[in-house]
Amino acid sequence: MARWAPGALERLQRAALELFADRGYEATTVAEISAQAGVTERTFFRYFSDKREVLFAGQGHFEAAFTDALAGAPADTPLMALVTAALDAGAAALQGARSRDQVQARHAIINANEQLRERELLKMAKLARAVTAAVRARGIPDLQARLIGDLVVSVFNDAFIRWVAPGETRDLAQLQRESLGAIADLVASN
Amino acid sequence: MARWAPGALERLQRAALELFADRGYEATTVAEISAQAGVTERTFFRYFSDKREVLFAGQGHFEAAFTDALAGAPADTPLMALVTAALDAGAAALQGARSRDQVQARHAIINANEQLRERELLKMAKLARAVTAAVRARGIPDLQARLIGDLVVSVFNDAFIRWVAPGETRDLAQLQRESLGAIADLVASN
Repeated sequence: MARWAPGALERLQRAALELFADRGYEATTVAEISAQAGVTERTFFRYFSDKREVLFAGQGHFEAAFTDALAGAPADTPLMALVTAALDAGAAALQGARSRDQVQARHAIINANEQLRERELLKMAKLARAVTAAVRARGIPDLQARLIGDLVVSVFNDAFIRWVAPGETRDLAQLQRESLGAIADLVASN
Repeated sequence: MARWAPGALERLQRAALELFADRGYEATTVAEISAQAGVTERTFFRYFSDKREVLFAGQGHFEAAFTDALAGAPADTPLMALVTAALDAGAAALQGARSRDQVQARHAIINANEQLRERELLKMAKLARAVTAAVRARGIPDLQARLIGDLVVSVFNDAFIRWVAPGETRDLAQLQRESLGAIADLVASN
C-alpha cells in the first residue's frame, strides 16, 4: 500500500464512527478501523495517537473558529455582539465540517463511555479558556473575559445538546440564540 | 506505628500541601508526605490512591453542599434564588473546611501543573453536572437545569479566582454575588 493515502483521514474517521456505533467503542481495535478504511495501521498512527483521538480530531480548527471571530471583530464591537459572533462562527465551523448524522453518531458514542465523556468535558473546558484568552486579547478585563468564555461554552453546549436530539431540524446558530435568550431571561428573573 | 492514626487525614493533607509548595508537586513522593505526616505509606494509601488525590479529596462533600441546598429549598423557590442558595452553601462549605491560606496554597500548586489543571477543570465540569441533576430533580425542565448548572459553576469559578488573589479580603459569598451581577449586566448589555 502506498504511504500516500488520499482521503485517509476522512476514511479513518468514518470507519471509526461506524465501528464504534456497531460494535461499541471498547470492542473496536485500531486494526479493525484501519482495515475498514483500507489503510495500514501505520497510516492510522500517522493521523491519530490512539483510537480515542479519532473522536477528538479537529479541536484546533473548532476552537480557532471561535477565537478568529473574536480577534477579527471591529474594535468597538459590544460585548454581547462578540458573544454571538463567536457562537455563530463556531456553529458554522461545526456544521461545515460534519453532517448532523455524523455529529449525532459521535455524540451517542461519547455519551456511552465515561472516559470519553470526561475527555469531552475537558475539551469544552479548554474551549472556554481559549475564548477567554481571545476576549482578554481585545483588552477586555479579566473578570468579564472569563464570564464571556464560560457563557459562550455554556450556550454552545446547551444548543448542541438540543441540536443533536432526534427530530430536531433547526440550525445550530438559531438554537444558540434561543439558549442565550434563555440565560438572559433566567438571570433577569426573580 | 499503630494502624489507628488519629488526625492522619488532615496531617497528610497539610504535609502534602507543604511539600508540594516547597519542592514542587512532581518532585514530592508519597514516602516523603507520609514521613512528614508521621504515618506509614500504608496509612497514606488507606486515604488516597495517589499523591494527586490528596489535592482533590473532599469533592463529594463540596458537591453535596450545592446539591443539598437545591434539594432542601422550598418548592416555590424562584430559579435565581436557587442559584444563590446553591452558591452560598458552596461558599460556606469551602470556607468552613479550609482556611484561605490553605486554598491559596492548593490553587498555586494546581496552577503550576497542566495535569492538575485538567483534573481541576474536570472537577468543576462534574460539579456543573451534579448541580444540573439536583435542579432537574426539582422538576425544572432540562434546558433550564443545564443553564443553571453552568451558571452556578461559572459564578463560583469566577468568584473563587478573585477570592484566592493576594490581598483579597472579601468573603467568597459576597464575591459570588458580584460575579452574578456582572453576568446579569453582561447579558442585558448591547
